[in-house]
Amino acid sequence: MNKIFFNLKESRVFQYLIISIIIFNAFIIGIDTYELSNFTRKIIYILDYLITIFFVIEILIRFIGEPKKLNFFKSGWNIFDSAIVLISLIPLPNNSSFLLLRLLRVFRVLRIISIIPELKLIIEALLDSIKRVFYVSLLLFIILYIYATIGSILFGNDIPLKWNNVGISMITLFQVLTLSSWEQVMLPLQEVYWWAWTYFFSFIIICGITMLNLLIAVLVDVVINQKRL
Amino acid sequence: MNKIFFNLKESRVFQYLIISIIIFNAFIIGIDTYELSNFTRKIIYILDYLITIFFVIEILIRFIGEPKKLNFFKSGWNIFDSAIVLISLIPLPNNSSFLLLRLLRVFRVLRIISIIPELKLIIEALLDSIKRVFYVSLLLFIILYIYATIGSILFGNDIPLKWNNVGISMITLFQVLTLSSWEQVMLPLQEVYWWAWTYFFSFIIICGITMLNLLIAVLVDVVINQKRL
Amino acid sequence: MNKIFFNLKESRVFQYLIISIIIFNAFIIGIDTYELSNFTRKIIYILDYLITIFFVIEILIRFIGEPKKLNFFKSGWNIFDSAIVLISLIPLPNNSSFLLLRLLRVFRVLRIISIIPELKLIIEALLDSIKRVFYVSLLLFIILYIYATIGSILFGNDIPLKWNNVGISMITLFQVLTLSSWEQVMLPLQEVYWWAWTYFFSFIIICGITMLNLLIAVLVDVVINQKRL
Amino acid sequence: MNKIFFNLKESRVFQYLIISIIIFNAFIIGIDTYELSNFTRKIIYILDYLITIFFVIEILIRFIGEPKKLNFFKSGWNIFDSAIVLISLIPLPNNSSFLLLRLLRVFRVLRIISIIPELKLIIEALLDSIKRVFYVSLLLFIILYIYATIGSILFGNDIPLKWNNVGISMITLFQVLTLSSWEQVMLPLQEVYWWAWTYFFSFIIICGITMLNLLIAVLVDVVINQKRL
Repeated sequence: MNKIFFNLKESRVFQYLIISIIIFNAFIIGIDTYELSNFTRKIIYILDYLITIFFVIEILIRFIGEPKKLNFFKSGWNIFDSAIVLISLIPLPNNSSFLLLRLLRVFRVLRIISIIPELKLIIEALLDSIKRVFYVSLLLFIILYIYATIGSILFGNDIPLKWNNVGISMITLFQVLTLSSWEQVMLPLQEVYWWAWTYFFSFIIICGITMLNLLIAVLVDVVINQKRL
Repeated sequence: MNKIFFNLKESRVFQYLIISIIIFNAFIIGIDTYELSNFTRKIIYILDYLITIFFVIEILIRFIGEPKKLNFFKSGWNIFDSAIVLISLIPLPNNSSFLLLRLLRVFRVLRIISIIPELKLIIEALLDSIKRVFYVSLLLFIILYIYATIGSILFGNDIPLKWNNVGISMITLFQVLTLSSWEQVMLPLQEVYWWAWTYFFSFIIICGITMLNLLIAVLVDVVINQKRL
Repeated sequence: MNKIFFNLKESRVFQYLIISIIIFNAFIIGIDTYELSNFTRKIIYILDYLITIFFVIEILIRFIGEPKKLNFFKSGWNIFDSAIVLISLIPLPNNSSFLLLRLLRVFRVLRIISIIPELKLIIEALLDSIKRVFYVSLLLFIILYIYATIGSILFGNDIPLKWNNVGISMITLFQVLTLSSWEQVMLPLQEVYWWAWTYFFSFIIICGITMLNLLIAVLVDVVINQKRL
Repeated sequence: MNKIFFNLKESRVFQYLIISIIIFNAFIIGIDTYELSNFTRKIIYILDYLITIFFVIEILIRFIGEPKKLNFFKSGWNIFDSAIVLISLIPLPNNSSFLLLRLLRVFRVLRIISIIPELKLIIEALLDSIKRVFYVSLLLFIILYIYATIGSILFGNDIPLKWNNVGISMITLFQVLTLSSWEQVMLPLQEVYWWAWTYFFSFIIICGITMLNLLIAVLVDVVINQKRL
């Protein structure tokens, strides 16, 4: 019995069926955001229901097909898949107030990652570099926090819309960090304080150097890991 | 006979002649976009006709000059050249409704790549890295799709112009991905929902880390290939 | 006696206590930028006072706990910590004219870096690459200066707001360097001088190549250092 | 006699004197862009005259101090310095119509590069990578040209201000290439043609991949050169 499920689970047909269903599901979730007739929406609702059932069966097959049941839970990807499917089991009424459930259903699209091995590899590589990314991000956050505090002390009274408190200032500075129309933040202040450019230039240069460092740190990590192999 | 064509095909004079004609052709195609007198446009039309004939002859010479005819079709670049020239053979009337043919003619400029060996090398290096780029792009597309669906569910009623359905949302989010004036997308939403920044910040950071990973993946690929040589 | 302080200094509890206090301090400094009732502001004032005392005691413990007193001053991080805390000892009146002292207090947040070893490593790696960054930045500054002078000579009379003198021109060109809405700087000039695009395109391309060089120079430095290890 | 000049040329005092004069000259050129009294402008004029004389003497000392006269002209940097100084010898009247000479004088600032060895090294590294950069730039130019032609054929009648002919289209597409507010170029077209996004998305993605390739190509070049050393 177990072996039948194992063979089923490992078969190419089963894999391609799952991929097709997930992509079809993603397609339906996308269609659902367009203005639709009641009839179409009903069909989508039924299809969504059928896909949920399919997913539950699929997870069960993969669980039963696993020779050692404990190994199933050792794989992060299995837990990831099960969690996404289990959330779908919570009944979703037509009522639009159940926005959260509708949103959670979107995450089913993420299952494409766990099905395509190349995407799994990319995510695993991402997770390897996450430690480095975390600490440089923490450093960037500290720089952002300090500049935001200084910004709200200095400019809070002049342009409260952008610098009223440390929270708003951080949103403003994140925009400056991404270099997106940041001169529209600086120029009004430049008219009040002639030295305002030093605040912005130093922030951009310090963050730039820090992010350059992030790039290099992650790269060196990868190169060193590569050599060990 | 074949040998004469082979020598002709391999001669430097022939190469430089082709490059000159292609560049001249590119020049003419560019000139054609300016407002011109009827007389000039007629000259351009005749020149274009002559260049097409030249290109056909050139491809024939290269085909006849090939010692083994089958090898001609084994080179992707030969097929590329032939296809571009063959498309030109479809007669192009003055009628402006034949916009498509006028557009197809523009692609003749691409022949410069197949003539200059250094550019061929760059394209071949590009194609080597394309597999990695494809899978990271797929991942970026999945992230974009999920965020677009969430965006149209959450913000679709507030700012329909930018978030009405998953299609429009993806165009909006591609703008955010390129960090181009993305704060003008966020700020109106920030006024409605105080937590709107989490949506945008998480999107930018996740996509940023994914693209950082793309850079590193391609780089490691190249370094490993380099070591094998 | 010294040994008690040494053990205290090295103990995990002491480390975590300091981290907690610094984070709590950062939190208070942030809260202080919001509009607060007089009562809350008074509590913050008192808390700030207590934290200052705590920091002084902490530095003293670390100094007394050091077996060789001279080594304390050999570590740049100890001097960094002491300087930040000493500045806090200057009494801070409620009077808002003491803006500078209020700003200096913000830098206490930087102490998180000296407490978390991973952040210390990142900063030390940053300082290693600083020499390379300095010279490429100097080159960028020279390019910026030359373009700013040329810009103010050429465009100074047309758009004085952005090109009046070399100072204003440098701020304008820094915006162009960060590619932030730079076309809004070029397009008005393009209407006056048809060749204005050459000025901007050459500036962007030259700076782009120089920054590409920076990236590579720092990377090669790091790879070479890595090999020595 | 030659030896005195050689010693003078190689002495540290002479080097620092030149650096000081060049920086002072750069400072004066910058000052000259501000609104000045006639008196100050006269002083600047005299100082500029004296610096020119100093530069001529300096070049002469370096030429006479060279043991083998022919070697002087073998160094690109010597020719670079001499050319910049020789241009200054063309008399510069107060008349503002001599804009070109005033502009040429600005390039004297570039002499800082030839005096500071670290900057010389960076420039030489830049020139090493220039061949790679040239061919990828050529490829980018071809892509830009093709898209500009297509753009002016498709959109020329709708928004002539940005797409009238291939020249204007290239300026517009260069803005899109730098991702600077490019959505303001796309959105008006998106209202006319629903497929306009494919034009812009494909352009940005193709150029992005090409530039990623540039980065990697230059990097691999540098790493290979490093290994040979």
